[in-house]
Amino acid sequence: MRLLDRIMEANQRFVSEYSPQTMEARPRLKAAVVTCMDTRLVDFLEPAMGITRGDVKMIKNAGNTIAEGNDDVLRSLVVAVYELGVEEIIVMGHTRCGMAHAKAEELVESMKHRGIKEEVLKQVDFAKWLGLFKSEEENVRQVVKKLKESPLLPANVPVHGLIIDIDTGAITVLVNGYEG
Amino acid sequence: MRLLDRIMEANQRFVSEYSPQTMEARPRLKAAVVTCMDTRLVDFLEPAMGITRGDVKMIKNAGNTIAEGNDDVLRSLVVAVYELGVEEIIVMGHTRCGMAHAKAEELVESMKHRGIKEEVLKQVDFAKWLGLFKSEEENVRQVVKKLKESPLLPANVPVHGLIIDIDTGAITVLVNGYEG
Repeated sequence: MRLLDRIMEANQRFVSEYSPQTMEARPRLKAAVVTCMDTRLVDFLEPAMGITRGDVKMIKNAGNTIAEGNDDVLRSLVVAVYELGVEEIIVMGHTRCGMAHAKAEELVESMKHRGIKEEVLKQVDFAKWLGLFKSEEENVRQVVKKLKESPLLPANVPVHGLIIDIDTGAITVLVNGYEG
Repeated sequence: MRLLDRIMEANQRFVSEYSPQTMEARPRLKAAVVTCMDTRLVDFLEPAMGITRGDVKMIKNAGNTIAEGNDDVLRSLVVAVYELGVEEIIVMGHTRCGMAHAKAEELVESMKHRGIKEEVLKQVDFAKWLGLFKSEEENVRQVVKKLKESPLLPANVPVHGLIIDIDTGAITVLVNGYEG
């Protein structure tokens, strides 16, 4: 069965069993989580953090990172803080992150093989644009620092830096945003 | 209890009951979902789509949108497609999205009240930077179009445009990526 058919079939079952609820857009825990798009965090990070529907805003990208010149995370957080009552931010990295192991050259090779044109590939500095990093922990600390330094966020919003073990689910605090 | 303590306490309970699993980073359904950071989608979109841990890459930002000059979604999708075996993309909007109802002027007022400096606020065209939109459906169609037109993604990757009713969970197909 094709993906779209599979999703629509599952959705029909879901809707037939679900009692509609009207819920507010403002998160109960007044928090936003910035984390990775990783497939292993889907349906895993929430129970590992003890959060459920309505608790937090959830922002996800490749590597829970702020790549150079790319401020989409900040854009989303500005909306979360000023429009939706978010008062704390959690940057949540994870172990064995693809962004800490990918190589820009291999990715560009792969793009060539898939037919992306040379003149397009030449226009982008992929190592920089992708925001690849060496250490998952260091990336979390850097993102926390960038957010704390942003002139667009209030200074009194704590930004915490955490990392989750993708295999065991154990969370470690790297930066406690309540301190300093 | 403070947020961080609450999360760490919940995590201890989770870890004590969870049997560690080693899972691959490549998503089983070979798909990436681009959706909104909305708190009502957390722990709701997955069951409504019939997906679980390991099935898809999940990208989330304010309004599941590509704001002008902001290519973080594309950056994440490039990694997903060329590094992680993603062969289909789903753009998933939702009804009653904050980004279709927020006003840039009110947000800037709120920033002023929270102490953000005038000279900082003057530097940004917020209506444009935030990527606010009028129609959730039109936004999904626009994002699908932008992704289909991107020279960085292979032409043969279907991009579907869907929207979920945030109250009932019912999903509607706006753009069937298999067609055309």
